[in-house]
Amino acid sequence: MKKFIAEIDIMPIREILDPQGKAVTLGLNNLGLNEVAEARVGKHITLQLEAESEDKAKEKVETACQKLLANLIMEKYSYEILAVE
Amino acid sequence: MKKFIAEIDIMPIREILDPQGKAVTLGLNNLGLNEVAEARVGKHITLQLEAESEDKAKEKVETACQKLLANLIMEKYSYEILAVE
Repeated sequence: MKKFIAEIDIMPIREILDPQGKAVTLGLNNLGLNEVAEARVGKHITLQLEAESEDKAKEKVETACQKLLANLIMEKYSYEILAVE
Repeated sequence: MKKFIAEIDIMPIREILDPQGKAVTLGLNNLGLNEVAEARVGKHITLQLEAESEDKAKEKVETACQKLLANLIMEKYSYEILAVE
């Protein structure tokens, strides 16, 4: 079994309002950062996992995203898998 | 002014317990993904901003992270800046 790290981003889809992102945009504008046009806020998840190969690790991360981590109605996910050592 | 996108990750530092990450680990184990050893959960923020140059954009993102987005006592941040077009 090899060790992998998965870096997963889960973001609200474009079509959906993101009130947290709106709040961040306003907060940054109030700080004087008026050049920030839009902010969107989602989750970042780091998983340490073991698998026989990178393909198997990818399969597991897909399962994790689809069954637990992302709400596919409102969110989309993307990830990167890195081999450790 | 050029357009940039900043992809920011904000994660709880190693030394701090991450109960949300623990819950994710347990949830994945219950789903049959026993090979997941550790999960940590943080935020992912995408900013669209304008700046004269990539260096200026970086400065603005640093300010945003330090003054609003990250709690530097409990979190660390990292980011990537991409020029648009």
